[in-house]
Formats: sequence, C-alpha cells, structure tokens
Amino acid sequence: MKLRIYVTLKPGVLDPQGKAIEHALSGLGFAGVEGARVGKLIELDVADTVDDAQVDAMCRQLLANTVIENYRVERA
Amino acid sequence: MKLRIYVTLKPGVLDPQGKAIEHALSGLGFAGVEGARVGKLIELDVADTVDDAQVDAMCRQLLANTVIENYRVERA
Repeated sequence: MKLRIYVTLKPGVLDPQGKAIEHALSGLGFAGVEGARVGKLIELDVADTVDDAQVDAMCRQLLANTVIENYRVERA
Repeated sequence: MKLRIYVTLKPGVLDPQGKAIEHALSGLGFAGVEGARVGKLIELDVADTVDDAQVDAMCRQLLANTVIENYRVERA
C-alpha cells in the first residue's frame, strides 16, 4: 500500500528555505513571486496490515516535528 | 495564485534520506514498512500574471535538479 505524507511548517513559523527561494527567484529575474514555503513529501510503501493509527504514530514519532510542523496522510 | 510543486527523485536514484527513514521506523518498532522516498513540496504564492511557462522555467532553473529529480506543478 502506497501512502503520501505531506509535512509542512505551521503558519507563522519562519521558513528560511522559503525565503531563500523567494530571493533566488527574483535574483534570476522572475517577477511576481509573492511567497514560498518548503515542506516534505514522504512516499511510504507499507504492508496492507499497517493501519491508520500506526501511520499516525510514525508521523508523530519520526516523520514530523509536531511542535512546528503539520502533517497530512494521503493514500496514493 | 497558489501553486504546489512536488519535486521527487527519479526512479532508480538512490535516496539516502528514504533509507534512513526506513531504518529509523523499524528501529522504533514499526513493522511492515517496505520503502520510503523523500521529496520536496514547495508552495508558491505568485501573481496571476505569472504563466505556466514561467513556472516551468522556475522549476528547471532553481526548484528541481532535472538530472535526478522530476517535478509536478499543481494549482492549489
């Protein structure tokens, strides 16, 4: 079973990577870029026996830092 | 206009981050994890005047390393 887990910074948390992308894009001459935020896309291949509670525990214990990040699980 | 850009490693490209996640999850006692691959999710906020060709150029010039990565643009 394929799962996609999206890990994104919570609103209000400073995103230096995003800022760097904004500056780099304008430095390359691209106009109209008003904001950029960077997150992680983790594609997991798990056995069908793995249930939602276990996936949630994987996210909370390892894949996302729930102090500053949100995560969303999607079955691919 | 909000865009979501998914940058993922091309199939066959070694993914050390993914391997590290696999080992860490099994080390935490999670069974059934058969594979993990890590990519980037970049959320861009751009003016409505920015067209698809410009977004494509942003991806090719900065956001993705097209030698080893694929990218997919989605309007949020």
